[in-house]
Amino acid sequence: MPSALILIADGTEEMEFTIVYDTLVRAGVKCTSVLINPANNSGEDQGTAQCSRGIQIVPDTSQSQLSLSSAAEYDAIIIPGGAKGAETMSQSLYVQFLVRDFYQKKKHVGMICAGSLVAQTSQLPHQPLTSHPSVKEQLDKDFDYREDSVVVSGNLITRSKLNFPTSLGTAFPFAFALVEGLCGAQKRSEIVTPMVFPSGTPL
Amino acid sequence: MPSALILIADGTEEMEFTIVYDTLVRAGVKCTSVLINPANNSGEDQGTAQCSRGIQIVPDTSQSQLSLSSAAEYDAIIIPGGAKGAETMSQSLYVQFLVRDFYQKKKHVGMICAGSLVAQTSQLPHQPLTSHPSVKEQLDKDFDYREDSVVVSGNLITRSKLNFPTSLGTAFPFAFALVEGLCGAQKRSEIVTPMVFPSGTPL
Repeated sequence: MPSALILIADGTEEMEFTIVYDTLVRAGVKCTSVLINPANNSGEDQGTAQCSRGIQIVPDTSQSQLSLSSAAEYDAIIIPGGAKGAETMSQSLYVQFLVRDFYQKKKHVGMICAGSLVAQTSQLPHQPLTSHPSVKEQLDKDFDYREDSVVVSGNLITRSKLNFPTSLGTAFPFAFALVEGLCGAQKRSEIVTPMVFPSGTPL
Repeated sequence: MPSALILIADGTEEMEFTIVYDTLVRAGVKCTSVLINPANNSGEDQGTAQCSRGIQIVPDTSQSQLSLSSAAEYDAIIIPGGAKGAETMSQSLYVQFLVRDFYQKKKHVGMICAGSLVAQTSQLPHQPLTSHPSVKEQLDKDFDYREDSVVVSGNLITRSKLNFPTSLGTAFPFAFALVEGLCGAQKRSEIVTPMVFPSGTPL
């Protein structure tokens, strides 16, 4: 069973977090949410994440409970957006270490929306990338910035380096791209149908 | 500021809950999530809702904290899906009372997916309705069952009786229809654009 770490912090966009987590679970991926504390509060857990529109989520674990070596055993790491949450994650040394580690080991690295900031602070190499328009200018100088809704940089099938930055409304295509990477194209088809999307939805 | 009650229980589909809550908050609606306990545990709060794919959410309040008279002051009530959560809600006298009350007062009543079961147990009158296909057979005899993704029964502009049952992939159009009902068409346009949906998405 493939496994994914999905990061969460105060200010995380709750739809982006939830859509990815839920969709991956439907595909049989073992998901673990990890609470990331702000830089000035790295030692003490706050217990829950207060998301961007007020929904409060209890994470499965936290950065103080999950050692870097245990975290590094997962198959994918996902960074949701939400300006404040993405800022916290982008400044977290714990997150930067993991993102670089996953990236170098050619494991899946997913970033949504403002979450793409983490690619910059983790000093990932220059490559195609997209993000929420609000952080485009910040990312433009260090990456081959694309306007596509989902950008796959690297080979999905061979599990080479991957980034899936995307915008909020494309959280589903993002999640499905990740399912395909972790579980294969057949699994992707299996889970899309029962979710009953309106005809014409670009997935 | 319009206000909405959004119900949650163990087994609620976390995407449906989160997409509606988040989208309504973006539109300026005051959202309050209310934990509904199973029928055999109506007196004691469990504190959090364990959603259908494992995400744990802390509700804003609970049925034991929010009196029926306070609840009845809101402008809308929303029932998310998720088989187990919808079952709990459909059997709850608290929920049945509120749904009938909101309906009779011509306030907005929204039901997603299996959440439409509540229309039946609340004995709402025969009218157009849709739901997740899995509960179609159950609803077919009491309602004018439709296959459309979003069914509006009643006049949205005049705030007459409304039901918005829909399926998971149509949680966004459902939420936008509700925004239009509560806040008007202009507010709907204002919030859709910055959410950056891929072109072709039927909203």
